[in-house]
Amino acid sequence: MLRRRRRPYNLQGMQLELLTIVGVGLIGGSIGLAAKRRGVARRVRGLGRQQASLDRALEIGAIDEAHLDPQAALTGADLVVVCTPVDHIADQVVHFARHCGPATLLTDAGSTKAAIVETVEARLPATGPQFVGSHPLAGSEKRGPDFAHAQLFEHRLTVVTPTPRTPAAAVDRIAGFWSALGSRVKVMSPADHDRALALTSHLPHLLAAALAGTLPADVRELTATGFRDTTRIAAGDPRLWTAIFTQNRMPLLDALGRVESRLREFRQALEAGDPAAIDRLLAQAKEVRDALGN
Amino acid sequence: MLRRRRRPYNLQGMQLELLTIVGVGLIGGSIGLAAKRRGVARRVRGLGRQQASLDRALEIGAIDEAHLDPQAALTGADLVVVCTPVDHIADQVVHFARHCGPATLLTDAGSTKAAIVETVEARLPATGPQFVGSHPLAGSEKRGPDFAHAQLFEHRLTVVTPTPRTPAAAVDRIAGFWSALGSRVKVMSPADHDRALALTSHLPHLLAAALAGTLPADVRELTATGFRDTTRIAAGDPRLWTAIFTQNRMPLLDALGRVESRLREFRQALEAGDPAAIDRLLAQAKEVRDALGN
Repeated sequence: MLRRRRRPYNLQGMQLELLTIVGVGLIGGSIGLAAKRRGVARRVRGLGRQQASLDRALEIGAIDEAHLDPQAALTGADLVVVCTPVDHIADQVVHFARHCGPATLLTDAGSTKAAIVETVEARLPATGPQFVGSHPLAGSEKRGPDFAHAQLFEHRLTVVTPTPRTPAAAVDRIAGFWSALGSRVKVMSPADHDRALALTSHLPHLLAAALAGTLPADVRELTATGFRDTTRIAAGDPRLWTAIFTQNRMPLLDALGRVESRLREFRQALEAGDPAAIDRLLAQAKEVRDALGN
Repeated sequence: MLRRRRRPYNLQGMQLELLTIVGVGLIGGSIGLAAKRRGVARRVRGLGRQQASLDRALEIGAIDEAHLDPQAALTGADLVVVCTPVDHIADQVVHFARHCGPATLLTDAGSTKAAIVETVEARLPATGPQFVGSHPLAGSEKRGPDFAHAQLFEHRLTVVTPTPRTPAAAVDRIAGFWSALGSRVKVMSPADHDRALALTSHLPHLLAAALAGTLPADVRELTATGFRDTTRIAAGDPRLWTAIFTQNRMPLLDALGRVESRLREFRQALEAGDPAAIDRLLAQAKEVRDALGN
């Protein structure tokens, strides 16, 4: 399912004159901070819709220039990273590409890939600028530039999702960019990415929300660290996650089916009062969880 | 569902000459450390089955004496706290009570209460010694005295579960003991406790295990903090949790039914491609989760 690269990406070549970040929240702000701290970009522009977020991104040093106007933000950019909600990314990439020269590279940081990559590929001219989908696995339930930090991508994984049409040089350059920010990089197809993330990210979010959402008010004070850990991500922004669930609904439904089937096994074991069956299910889960580390 | 106390428990009176802890793991070891640090007990004895655990509990200062022999450990104890797996507690309390005088109080630290309290009540003579069930909500997926610490009960809640037959003085004394260790205390019936904990602790464990247990091996490297938080408790000891699930299986099945029903709502919203319905479910979950704090 997962393709492996033959060699580490060349970080030496990653020295951008001008990086433009669209959306300067937790991810976009952290990209700016990491790019400046690590000398990946000589100059960083932020493009946003809220002056307050842009001002805050300027204050923390995540960007050098703040723009509300796409033309001013995008002209001359070597690399554009679109860090907006997944349901805005494709349209914005297509729209912003018009302001870019053919040598400009565009990427994103969205949690879904197939819908975005397909839409962009169908609408961008093959002559450039080029777009390569990305997903840094480095979010949290927090939002906004106040939570941005330069180390966000260190010891994390970024998935880069080219298609057969993507030039190899563009893939290398985008992979090199994330590597230069401190991230490990994995190249997968958009569909493989979406199937994997449905299982590792979108399904956990759905379960956390189902658990939090059905907690009766009168037992809230009896929750402890277990409940809080298990439901922490349910505090994420519903609008963002609704867009993720909607874009990735078929893989998410498959992933949900896996857990529903396992819950039926638990139900049968409990109804039968069968400790050996319960123990097998719990032991197998512990084995997987232990393998993940903290 | 939850009864409230009229007044805080009197901590002044809580000065035990001799406290015996049965099972010196994370919880038992922490009780010893907290009792000594806070001057709750003048002398603390540990009773166990593994010399290694007892030695470690002595080393960290959780107990003053280590015993493998119940008679030697229990004679003269003012309070006995049984911190063993839930499927051992009732038998041990009944057995140990024979070594105790009529003024000795016994309690436990088990995650289930109705089965334990009913069994003990049916088998202990009404003339004493008295048993009052307890459950400090202060565990973790870790085990053993190495993880014990004196602050484990601070800012946590301990549920104390008397029955109509339990003398009020015994309830006050057990509640006072946990308060003296730094815990808040709540008095509930054993059945109310079990219904609440099925929702706040046992169901999260089941969901975490279902999620961890169905993760395909080839996507493990694509897990990030969300998956790890959501499944952390699945690393707990399967034997301990099998006993908890088995003892509390009817309330746990009810709790599971609530989540299964919510998962069907998610499935319908996804199958229909209905973003408004998904958003409602996620927004309601976020509201609950935000109310819990970190």
